[in-house]
Amino acid sequence: MIQTKFQSCIEACLDCVAICNQCAIACLNEKEVAHLKKCIQLNLECVAICQAAANILSLDGKFSKDICKLCMEICNACAEECEKHVAMGMEHCRECAEACRKCAQACEEMMAA
Amino acid sequence: MIQTKFQSCIEACLDCVAICNQCAIACLNEKEVAHLKKCIQLNLECVAICQAAANILSLDGKFSKDICKLCMEICNACAEECEKHVAMGMEHCRECAEACRKCAQACEEMMAA
Amino acid sequence: MIQTKFQSCIEACLDCVAICNQCAIACLNEKEVAHLKKCIQLNLECVAICQAAANILSLDGKFSKDICKLCMEICNACAEECEKHVAMGMEHCRECAEACRKCAQACEEMMAA
Amino acid sequence: MIQTKFQSCIEACLDCVAICNQCAIACLNEKEVAHLKKCIQLNLECVAICQAAANILSLDGKFSKDICKLCMEICNACAEECEKHVAMGMEHCRECAEACRKCAQACEEMMAA
Repeated sequence: MIQTKFQSCIEACLDCVAICNQCAIACLNEKEVAHLKKCIQLNLECVAICQAAANILSLDGKFSKDICKLCMEICNACAEECEKHVAMGMEHCRECAEACRKCAQACEEMMAA
Repeated sequence: MIQTKFQSCIEACLDCVAICNQCAIACLNEKEVAHLKKCIQLNLECVAICQAAANILSLDGKFSKDICKLCMEICNACAEECEKHVAMGMEHCRECAEACRKCAQACEEMMAA
Repeated sequence: MIQTKFQSCIEACLDCVAICNQCAIACLNEKEVAHLKKCIQLNLECVAICQAAANILSLDGKFSKDICKLCMEICNACAEECEKHVAMGMEHCRECAEACRKCAQACEEMMAA
Repeated sequence: MIQTKFQSCIEACLDCVAICNQCAIACLNEKEVAHLKKCIQLNLECVAICQAAANILSLDGKFSKDICKLCMEICNACAEECEKHVAMGMEHCRECAEACRKCAQACEEMMAA
């Protein structure tokens, strides 16, 4: 089987791509969109890094650990922002924060491997 | 839950991104790499379209069905090429063909939805 | 020189990637952001397709004409939306519409080649 | 005009995306493809990071300097590998090394800004 030791990290990154895009669009459709600008921007930044990390890991790239380190940082920043909106009942932000934390965790484990 | 009606199609596209990248690198490391050029090129083309399709679907884009149509075609072309190498024992091509066919199927179902 | 016959089309697609991202963020920072949702969503959709088109063309992919056809359609849709905001003084939308029309034109020429 | 202070860095990253893809395919079509594996793999890794950097910069992302730092490192690694093949007459590697060095330089300047 094509199974790299990084499979779970790749999957966490790809999940994060989809969920961050979905969170960005859901934020855009909230009445309070003006308060969610920073969230949308971080969502999109998170999509970009998670996509790159998934590609570099699945290409078995030389810089896999380096991209995971940066991916972890961006995912944590996005999660932190999303978490601010959970109390306001934004379910998409709750889910997104969860996916970002999970991805950050997977990146950290990958770096320690 | 952020659950679009296209969730399973997004997941199939993202699986295909990872597996096509992995197949490209595995082909590159085969002794017969010279015979696998077309396969590697289609793998990379498939990564590009599946990534775009996953993004457009998760952005709930207006052109979701159009990108799925093209994604289905490229996935089928990549699967067809990979299937030629299964008899030669290339497990990565077998797995890649399977992921591509699954993605093509998910795209077809999405278009019919 | 690595010069494909598609060089100008690749460049137009890549320009469009950067300008559509910049337009999305500029829209997000407008006071009227609530009226610019559709524009932001199309900007992001346009980024996804232009990125895929640039990749497939530069990989000399088999489906180059097909991706250009879809890229042309999405670029025209994005331009049409952006053009609605030019009269409101949104310079980023004027520039984005221009880049999208130029990319659509380059895709059309590439398809005719 | 949508002109970020990072415009020249964004352009250098996007140039690098196209040229690295083209170098990967050109390498794949060389008779000596078996000796160019590492080059192709680095080309693809470089595409992934340059794409992410161009996206994050054009989104005016919070992590712009961080992604530029990693982009600089990967571009230099890809350039170093490509430069080994210039003496063998591989024009695509010469051009690719040039684009990678230029991108690394633009990233360095951006980080210092």
